[in-house]
Amino acid sequence: MRLIRLGPSGAERPHLLLPDDRVVDVTAQVGDFDPAFFARDGLAALRRLQVNDAAGATPMPAVRVGPPVTRPGKIVCIGLNYRDHAEESGAPVPTEPVVFLKAPNTLVGPNDDVHIPRGSTKTDWEVELGIVIGRTCRYLASHEEALAAIAGYMVNHDVSEREFQLERGGQWDKGKSCETFNPAGPWLVTADEVSDPGRLGLWLDVNGQRRQTGNTRTLIFGVAEVVRYLSQFMVLDPGDIISTGTPAGVALGRPDKPYLRAGDVVELGIDGLGRQRQQFVAAP
Amino acid sequence: MRLIRLGPSGAERPHLLLPDDRVVDVTAQVGDFDPAFFARDGLAALRRLQVNDAAGATPMPAVRVGPPVTRPGKIVCIGLNYRDHAEESGAPVPTEPVVFLKAPNTLVGPNDDVHIPRGSTKTDWEVELGIVIGRTCRYLASHEEALAAIAGYMVNHDVSEREFQLERGGQWDKGKSCETFNPAGPWLVTADEVSDPGRLGLWLDVNGQRRQTGNTRTLIFGVAEVVRYLSQFMVLDPGDIISTGTPAGVALGRPDKPYLRAGDVVELGIDGLGRQRQQFVAAP
Repeated sequence: MRLIRLGPSGAERPHLLLPDDRVVDVTAQVGDFDPAFFARDGLAALRRLQVNDAAGATPMPAVRVGPPVTRPGKIVCIGLNYRDHAEESGAPVPTEPVVFLKAPNTLVGPNDDVHIPRGSTKTDWEVELGIVIGRTCRYLASHEEALAAIAGYMVNHDVSEREFQLERGGQWDKGKSCETFNPAGPWLVTADEVSDPGRLGLWLDVNGQRRQTGNTRTLIFGVAEVVRYLSQFMVLDPGDIISTGTPAGVALGRPDKPYLRAGDVVELGIDGLGRQRQQFVAAP
Repeated sequence: MRLIRLGPSGAERPHLLLPDDRVVDVTAQVGDFDPAFFARDGLAALRRLQVNDAAGATPMPAVRVGPPVTRPGKIVCIGLNYRDHAEESGAPVPTEPVVFLKAPNTLVGPNDDVHIPRGSTKTDWEVELGIVIGRTCRYLASHEEALAAIAGYMVNHDVSEREFQLERGGQWDKGKSCETFNPAGPWLVTADEVSDPGRLGLWLDVNGQRRQTGNTRTLIFGVAEVVRYLSQFMVLDPGDIISTGTPAGVALGRPDKPYLRAGDVVELGIDGLGRQRQQFVAAP
């Protein structure tokens, strides 16, 4: 299934996106795609619904697309998880996952404007495979358990301010949590429909110019290992988002450091998970 | 006012704690002390209620105390914010606040057991002044604006695993987000009743032995500056928790590194904000 949320920010309605690209509003049946939905195995209820209710489908309306999930308890990110990106960042290739957190209120829709923070000169892009957790995870013992705990996958844009992240006091979170810094979606694809999350192409363009090209098969720590590993250090809850890292090609890693400016347009996507398009604007 | 939540984990009921230490259950009036409560200025409603309803007060029941607020959108922490703690940690005294995040699902009651994570050998203590945010904060321009955005103060225990934090991949969050690692409370004192948050004594004992003694007057970055500063990098939301840093005396800073073991008892408190007592146990 593909889950999508449609409507103005803060008033989105959850929908199923059918294979023929029509949508079914499931607000009455599920409320919203929030942590409580995943915790009560709302996906199973939705599967039954899809079979019975496809007759209620309508063409995709011309409205804003929100993030496919809402109010995550946390957004956990893996740093330097592609060898080529670690090298371009001048950082050693990690021997175990580098973990940081991103404020959950950074989450916005896939095509919403992204604010360049006041005082920023180094706003940068990062296309990433996003994981949404479906079950509570504590001390998972195997990759099988980890994969069984994943609700689905989506495109996640880990927007980053490099001066705030790297030159302003030693911990990365400061450059990762600015308002609007986590466009997600357009939709969540449930795990059963992603045959191999370790073989997905990723790409990102700035103003129509290709900047990142990668594939999750070159992740240092793959999807199952990331979830298993994190569960040794924190409890992962239903609805949590994990961002798995970005391949090479960010502004930080380029000789000319082409950081984003107001007016720039970033487009990005992942095989089968859809595409995003953001205009970057000065923070009001 | 003092706000306290009483009852089993996940089923706490919000109460007012009166000056005579009786309590008034305010569940029917406020729902819970959650982000929505602070966002709709529930504190003002509660002030009116206190005057009218003190007749409904009862003695404090012999039940568990929960964290005084629930479901924070984020827990933001300031690192190395007392000169003596920076020095004992072998870190330079920061020239601007060091910022990291703690997973919000670490929040527990002030007297709940704390789990020593599996594989941990360096679980450590940190008594801290906790701030709860009352209004949305974006790019605050002054310390006055910052102080006006604070709902209140509480004792916050920023439990930390030093190996996970410092020796396992470079970002601190990994050692700060383990299950039960944020005991908070026993109560929230509203900001109007804390005459000077920059002059509060803090203390922490392990097994009856004094380990930390400090005062918020030696904070490098004070309460107002911390809130103003953070609002330049992220949106602070009603109900968010900020932990302002710990003074010297943690296990990491002692020659014999007396990290916590199952069976250890930690007690801590802050002038006027009450005290906590936790037994440390092996994570199940």
